Amino acid sequence: MTNGKTRREWTMLAAAGSASGLLGRPVPAMAQATPSGGRAPRIAMLVHPDMIMLDLAAPLTVFSLLQAEIHLVWKDRQPVSTDIGIPVTPTSTLADCPADLDVLFVPGGLKGTVALMDDAQVLSFLADRGSRAAHVTSVCTGSLLLGAAGLLRSYAATSHWYVRDLLATMGATVRTDRVVTDRNRVTGGGATAGLDFGLTLAALLKDEATARRIQLVLEYDPQPPFDSGSPERAGRTRVADVLGRRAPLIASARERAEQARTRLSL
Amino acid sequence: MTNGKTRREWTMLAAAGSASGLLGRPVPAMAQATPSGGRAPRIAMLVHPDMIMLDLAAPLTVFSLLQAEIHLVWKDRQPVSTDIGIPVTPTSTLADCPADLDVLFVPGGLKGTVALMDDAQVLSFLADRGSRAAHVTSVCTGSLLLGAAGLLRSYAATSHWYVRDLLATMGATVRTDRVVTDRNRVTGGGATAGLDFGLTLAALLKDEATARRIQLVLEYDPQPPFDSGSPERAGRTRVADVLGRRAPLIASARERAEQARTRLSL
Repeated sequence: MTNGKTRREWTMLAAAGSASGLLGRPVPAMAQATPSGGRAPRIAMLVHPDMIMLDLAAPLTVFSLLQAEIHLVWKDRQPVSTDIGIPVTPTSTLADCPADLDVLFVPGGLKGTVALMDDAQVLSFLADRGSRAAHVTSVCTGSLLLGAAGLLRSYAATSHWYVRDLLATMGATVRTDRVVTDRNRVTGGGATAGLDFGLTLAALLKDEATARRIQLVLEYDPQPPFDSGSPERAGRTRVADVLGRRAPLIASARERAEQARTRLSL
Repeated sequence: MTNGKTRREWTMLAAAGSASGLLGRPVPAMAQATPSGGRAPRIAMLVHPDMIMLDLAAPLTVFSLLQAEIHLVWKDRQPVSTDIGIPVTPTSTLADCPADLDVLFVPGGLKGTVALMDDAQVLSFLADRGSRAAHVTSVCTGSLLLGAAGLLRSYAATSHWYVRDLLATMGATVRTDRVVTDRNRVTGGGATAGLDFGLTLAALLKDEATARRIQLVLEYDPQPPFDSGSPERAGRTRVADVLGRRAPLIASARERAEQARTRLSL
C-alpha cells in the first residue's frame, strides 16, 4: 500500500502522532492531511445510536496515535447516543463520506446494531464503501451489520460471543478467535476486543514496530482481576444468565439474520 | 458499606444494569436514583482538558453496568477536549459535586494532568472530596493529581509507567502492579489499565459475582497481538524512544512533583 519513501515518512509522522494523544494534544481535526504530503490512512467509522463507546474509543485511540484521517459517519450530524451517556457527534454523513477508504469500521452495541440489520440506507452505504475499502472491519456486534450488508459472505469472521453463530446465517465461517483476519476482512470479538483489533490494524496499516510502540504508550499489558471473559471460562450458569437477559434481542437478531440470508440469496 | 438487604436489592439492580449498556439503552441520566430506594454508588469522575478518553470510558463502562450514579466533574460545564477528538460535557461543576462520594476518580493524560499539578482549585477539590470519599482512585497519570493533592501520602500507588516514580516524591510507595489497592486508595497503571481497574472497583462496590458477569458481558478476555505492553517486555530501545519523545513533559512533571512535596511539607 505504501512505497519505501511513504513508509519512511509515515514512520516519522507516527512518531509525532504516538506522542500526541498521551501528551494531550487533541487530534487537531478529524480529517487531516500530513505536512509531508504523504497520505494518512483514511478511516471511516460508522457511529450509530446506542453504540458501545468502548467499541469506538479503543480502536480510535490507536488510529489517533497513527495520525489517521478519521471520519465519524452517520445519517446526519446530530449527536449520537452511546451506552455510557457521552454522545458522539458525527463528522460526516453517509452521503459525504469519502468513496474510497483504507478502513471501513463498524462498532457494536446489541440493540443498536440489531435495529440496523434491515436499514436499507445503512446497509447500502456499508455495501458500497465495503466493496472498495482496503480493509472492511468491525468490533463486537458490528459484524452483524457487515454480514447483513453481504460483506462477510464466504469470509471467516467473529462477533460478540453471544451472537457470533448468526454470522453463519449470513454466509460467514464463524471463528471464535479474539480477532479474525481473512483477506481484507478483520473482525473482533465483544467490546474490549477493540484494543486487540486496533493493534492488529496498526500493524496492517503501518508496521509491527509502530503497533508495538503504541502498545507501550497505552501500557496495554492486560491483567484482568478475574477469569470470566469468555463463555468457556465464565461457566454455564453465568453464560445462561447473560443470554437469558438478552433473549428477546438475540431472537430478533436471529430473525433479521434469516431475513438477510433471503435478501442476499444465500 | 451495604447491609444484606441493600446487597440483595443491589444484585437485582445490577442485573438490570448489566444488560442496559450492551442492550444499548443509554444510561438514562447521569445521576439516577434506584427504583427500590436503595442507593446506587455515587461516583465523581474528574474530566479535564486533554484527558485520555479511554481512561474515562473503560471504568465508566463498568460503572454504567453497575447502574452507578455518575457525576462528570469539571470547573465549568463547557465540553472538555480529549485525545481522540470527542469532547465530554461535564454534568457537574467542582462546586456542585456532591460532598460525600463512594468513589472519587481521576483519569490521566500526561500533558493535561501535568498542567493541573499546581492548579489550586482542582487540588483543593480533590483534597476535600478525597478526605471523605469511600474510595479515592485513578487510572494512568491521574495519580499525579491525587499525589499533588496530598492524597497518596503514605499509600502504595501506581501510575503510567513513564511517570510512576514521581509518586514517591509526593509521599507514596510506588508499586508496579497493574492495579494497586492500599486501604481505600485504588490506582491503575497506564491508559488501558482502566478495564482491570474498573472490574476491581466493581468487586469492591458490589461483589465478585457481579464483576465477573460484567467481564463476560464485555468479553474481557484480552489477547494482545504483541507483547510490548510493559517497559520490561518492550525492551530498552522502545522505552528510550517513548521516554525521549516525552522528555520535556516528564521533566515538567518532576518539577511540579518537587513543588508539591514542598507545598505538602513532605
